Amino acid sequence: MTGIIVTDIARADQSTIDALAVHGVATVHEAMGRIGLVGPTVHPIQNGARVAGSAVTVLCWPGDNLMIHAAVEQCQAGDILVVASNSPSLDGSFGELFATALKYRGVRGIVTTAGVRDVVDLRAMDFPAWASAQNAQGTVKATSGSVNVPIVVGGAVIRPGDIVVADDDGVVCVPRADAETTLLASEARVAKEAGARAAYQNGDLSLDRNDLRGLLADLGIRYVTQGKWADGDR
Amino acid sequence: MTGIIVTDIARADQSTIDALAVHGVATVHEAMGRIGLVGPTVHPIQNGARVAGSAVTVLCWPGDNLMIHAAVEQCQAGDILVVASNSPSLDGSFGELFATALKYRGVRGIVTTAGVRDVVDLRAMDFPAWASAQNAQGTVKATSGSVNVPIVVGGAVIRPGDIVVADDDGVVCVPRADAETTLLASEARVAKEAGARAAYQNGDLSLDRNDLRGLLADLGIRYVTQGKWADGDR
Amino acid sequence: MTGIIVTDIARADQSTIDALAVHGVATVHEAMGRIGLVGPTVHPIQNGARVAGSAVTVLCWPGDNLMIHAAVEQCQAGDILVVASNSPSLDGSFGELFATALKYRGVRGIVTTAGVRDVVDLRAMDFPAWASAQNAQGTVKATSGSVNVPIVVGGAVIRPGDIVVADDDGVVCVPRADAETTLLASEARVAKEAGARAAYQNGDLSLDRNDLRGLLADLGIRYVTQGKWADGDR
Amino acid sequence: MTGIIVTDIARADQSTIDALAVHGVATVHEAMGRIGLVGPTVHPIQNGARVAGSAVTVLCWPGDNLMIHAAVEQCQAGDILVVASNSPSLDGSFGELFATALKYRGVRGIVTTAGVRDVVDLRAMDFPAWASAQNAQGTVKATSGSVNVPIVVGGAVIRPGDIVVADDDGVVCVPRADAETTLLASEARVAKEAGARAAYQNGDLSLDRNDLRGLLADLGIRYVTQGKWADGDR
Amino acid sequence: MTGIIVTDIARADQSTIDALAVHGVATVHEAMGRIGLVGPTVHPIQNGARVAGSAVTVLCWPGDNLMIHAAVEQCQAGDILVVASNSPSLDGSFGELFATALKYRGVRGIVTTAGVRDVVDLRAMDFPAWASAQNAQGTVKATSGSVNVPIVVGGAVIRPGDIVVADDDGVVCVPRADAETTLLASEARVAKEAGARAAYQNGDLSLDRNDLRGLLADLGIRYVTQGKWADGDR
Amino acid sequence: MTGIIVTDIARADQSTIDALAVHGVATVHEAMGRIGLVGPTVHPIQNGARVAGSAVTVLCWPGDNLMIHAAVEQCQAGDILVVASNSPSLDGSFGELFATALKYRGVRGIVTTAGVRDVVDLRAMDFPAWASAQNAQGTVKATSGSVNVPIVVGGAVIRPGDIVVADDDGVVCVPRADAETTLLASEARVAKEAGARAAYQNGDLSLDRNDLRGLLADLGIRYVTQGKWADGDR
Repeated sequence: MTGIIVTDIARADQSTIDALAVHGVATVHEAMGRIGLVGPTVHPIQNGARVAGSAVTVLCWPGDNLMIHAAVEQCQAGDILVVASNSPSLDGSFGELFATALKYRGVRGIVTTAGVRDVVDLRAMDFPAWASAQNAQGTVKATSGSVNVPIVVGGAVIRPGDIVVADDDGVVCVPRADAETTLLASEARVAKEAGARAAYQNGDLSLDRNDLRGLLADLGIRYVTQGKWADGDR
Repeated sequence: MTGIIVTDIARADQSTIDALAVHGVATVHEAMGRIGLVGPTVHPIQNGARVAGSAVTVLCWPGDNLMIHAAVEQCQAGDILVVASNSPSLDGSFGELFATALKYRGVRGIVTTAGVRDVVDLRAMDFPAWASAQNAQGTVKATSGSVNVPIVVGGAVIRPGDIVVADDDGVVCVPRADAETTLLASEARVAKEAGARAAYQNGDLSLDRNDLRGLLADLGIRYVTQGKWADGDR
Repeated sequence: MTGIIVTDIARADQSTIDALAVHGVATVHEAMGRIGLVGPTVHPIQNGARVAGSAVTVLCWPGDNLMIHAAVEQCQAGDILVVASNSPSLDGSFGELFATALKYRGVRGIVTTAGVRDVVDLRAMDFPAWASAQNAQGTVKATSGSVNVPIVVGGAVIRPGDIVVADDDGVVCVPRADAETTLLASEARVAKEAGARAAYQNGDLSLDRNDLRGLLADLGIRYVTQGKWADGDR
Repeated sequence: MTGIIVTDIARADQSTIDALAVHGVATVHEAMGRIGLVGPTVHPIQNGARVAGSAVTVLCWPGDNLMIHAAVEQCQAGDILVVASNSPSLDGSFGELFATALKYRGVRGIVTTAGVRDVVDLRAMDFPAWASAQNAQGTVKATSGSVNVPIVVGGAVIRPGDIVVADDDGVVCVPRADAETTLLASEARVAKEAGARAAYQNGDLSLDRNDLRGLLADLGIRYVTQGKWADGDR
Repeated sequence: MTGIIVTDIARADQSTIDALAVHGVATVHEAMGRIGLVGPTVHPIQNGARVAGSAVTVLCWPGDNLMIHAAVEQCQAGDILVVASNSPSLDGSFGELFATALKYRGVRGIVTTAGVRDVVDLRAMDFPAWASAQNAQGTVKATSGSVNVPIVVGGAVIRPGDIVVADDDGVVCVPRADAETTLLASEARVAKEAGARAAYQNGDLSLDRNDLRGLLADLGIRYVTQGKWADGDR
Repeated sequence: MTGIIVTDIARADQSTIDALAVHGVATVHEAMGRIGLVGPTVHPIQNGARVAGSAVTVLCWPGDNLMIHAAVEQCQAGDILVVASNSPSLDGSFGELFATALKYRGVRGIVTTAGVRDVVDLRAMDFPAWASAQNAQGTVKATSGSVNVPIVVGGAVIRPGDIVVADDDGVVCVPRADAETTLLASEARVAKEAGARAAYQNGDLSLDRNDLRGLLADLGIRYVTQGKWADGDR
């Protein structure tokens, strides 16, 4: 694995990023056409946090956090640090001291396929983390890796400068070039969902609202009472 | 998979259901003779919720929530929606809009072998969920399934109208026909445990209270000091 | 498996144990040279607890908690009960009644490779647990096992009288003979980290503070701008 | 868990069972409408075996094989022993001595959610096994369970006397009452597949044979050359 | 997820692909600098197969193989079909009929993050498969997806036309543009390993051949006899 | 983790080791009282191998095989190399070149909690492996570890010089001091099983041979015909 540290990465417009954060992961994921999710292995370490930021990406050797040290310098306000290792590892390669350094720089959170530690401190600092484990296991600083190259994080590819949105539903990646269109689509979805919500609060059924009764019939799905079902009408 | 929607299911007496909710999962499971548990894969998405209700069951295709749309109409006050897919899936097939529609109908919660999303909203709405994942992954509405047929949920079979009890210890299913006897057995267990609790608060030992010293001896278990053990007396 | 109950185990000095609790799992693990961790499978069942105590160890048959009953009698103030089964099991072999009995004796918590139940009660009692699952599944009292023999708990061997430290980062075991040196090393680490923390709060980089720039160069890691990287300079 | 041993179970017609064995798991599963599968956790321990038989079911306590001893007596020629434990266990509760006793009675194989051991011998004896693990871990004979009650095996419910079909694709359960119709549907499917196979061997496309081009268009799926895709036509 | 089928993909030179197949996964992975591996979840379904081919990629909905039907038409001699689903699924979405159609076209194998079925037939046909499961579970043909777009397969991104190499050690992806240089690096590695092999067959130690004794000393690793270690010299 | 290489380890008598190999894992594990198993995560990479040897133990950093290089020198004829990493890793840290070097020295096999690669070659060389994965993922040689210290391998502690027995049922560790008594107990068990086997081949039931009918009755297990069970006699 040749090591490289890419500097001066391009980022999306900060106001677009901030607007995406408001909508949250499920809405943004839907707005993109149901793609870009990291998947539930990388889960929130706290409850109720919702952030978005520009990805600074890190590719580490398992059990080694050398490249996180190198990545801190590449971070600026509004970023989210995104860490993968080139083979699976749950080691606690990120903790409170890194969070302290990143907070100074205005970084908004950490997403890692590995583990995090000092969890009590991370929560107290209000520095949100999405990780595969809470794990005290320490790491070394010995092996090469890269900063700001494309990485695979769960089911998603994240490139430096992509927008990462994270909350209690997980983590989603919006390619930098799609930031504006995804925001517009998110806003459209929110508006549409507001209508649905109001209808459901009044007792409307999604079966009707989405015109699904015809589809059920087309699929050959029949209605039968429990009495008739028990009598063998299946 | 032939699709069917069974209507007019029979339910247990609501006061029995409500009384079972008070006792919680561990007690009810013990009262049934240690059967009926879904198992820990389907875990609480919030802390401290404890509910019971009549099961409205849904069998979905993985990645598809069409049949949840159909199931909402079959729900009434006091129910719990119970969802399985016919092969494993962690997709977020249930979220806040469904919860809104179910809350209008008086439904008490959701149990699903898949994932849930809009977790922040579900918690804010006080609509409890037990699921295999928090996951934003969206689903389609394209494939046939069934409502109110028997389904396998973890290690348990749940039939429509069975009583589902759920709390921080998991989810247990009480067959409808066993509701009354299970309630009586739960109450007996609670009374018995109250006595044990009082005794333990006074320093009594369960070894004595349960007459286990004889069993230990029968099994050939010996007591030895650490000093003698270190000297090879094993 | 021959059953034995070892009594009169030796314990470390209580003030040393209490001092280790203050430092937490990550610090103690580092102070020992990055060994002794149980690993993230055994995870905290609550948020924010941090305890240390002398291990009273229990080896159970899966699905059977007879030996936990026997172990209670061997516990005293300042202990932590540590339970393993001789093949994997997630059954809820520990619950509120055991916690009540242990609390009377001054025991500080439970660490188990199996599951715990009555989780709502354990949290209300402020009796912390580290376990592999929240699981109502009940157990029997039928099969032999041992108390206060060395056991394997995740990736660690825990011997009776060893010091167990547990918090939101997991569980670590300090051999009894290493208690004092580990405390000294923990204190040294805390002091060193205080300096690092202050520096990072001022914007210093760990790259500089740890003299890592030379290592990056030795590993052949190069810096390149994103523009040049896109042009193929990799 | 109340223990019971059900005797004199009804079985399907043996010639129907034998005919189902020929078709194998995938065909039978499809013929039933894509239900009844145990799922891949219970996997073949050998290559190339394909059997069918009447299920004699066993529900064991984890780590305990007492009820397998009781079940042997209930087996007859043409049966398959199907074992579940009431909470997950990978212990090697079945081995060569059981296989010897079952072979004497004409039993065709073992399906278990737990582990098997003496794997070298089982293969040499040509006694096929489907299990969750190869595992030498021994068990005790101490705790109650049942024989010939309905059990949950992976994603399927298996009742005594149901037909179990097993091969390298897994295990499927055919309810006893559905044996004849499933056999007819299997034969129809085999005939249909023979036509498809011949067509594909001649270079026909399933897109055409199944009239799927229209569906692709209806779903809005477009064809584009790689050149145009690279130019942004997505 | 917008559906698209990309046609006329570019492929690497066939003789280069064939030469890479000879070297196998471990060598090619090393020659690339230890990147590009899919990881062990996608494992060989047979023993001893070793193939390489141009990737035709498929992105399916879980539980749905519609897009595999569409992909067959895009395959030509020397290709390998590579299938991912946009959320995890172990369903048996690929079987013998697909293999028959692909074999007609000269396709060399299948790599899928889902399951395969008809395993006995696939082995008999000598059509090798790498998959996450052997699983009879059938799928539907109902939902949109894409052919020949970049997909995430385990820890690797695979683009249409990339070279996929697969054997008993797993699956590795060589970007099309890197085919020639990877082949050269593989040949160099093979030559170097031949020398090492000959040396080890004569009893040489890799400690000496790789000059590692100095590194051990630099890391502070000491040699001590077991007797002295037992006396506390650690 | 302080690094140390312990030399001149004591080993058990070779003829005892060879005699244990004959009996296999299940018998030896039972003879020890059902302890000492590694567990099924570390599984055989080939079919039908059965070996025993003295453990040379290695503790590696994840993703790093430096200490395996150091361990080769400590191996002699009749040994088995046993490798653990100090946090979980599936990397292919062992392959054909190591096997070549070990074979020269008369080593009988490899047991590792990580992965192995060059699987085709290992099988062709008849050098058996037990591992957690087949995985081409390469490793570095950068970080400290130890040779011939006690290590945790799955559920077992293995000390240098302990006897490791491995076959298709898994891996078991016999403490060096227990070698002779375990051999005697294994032989006794084999003799006892021969009697049981002969009886079962004649149709005897283990229920009778083990006097289990009384236990069934003591546990309250009743016999009932399927007809009466269906009528509610449960």
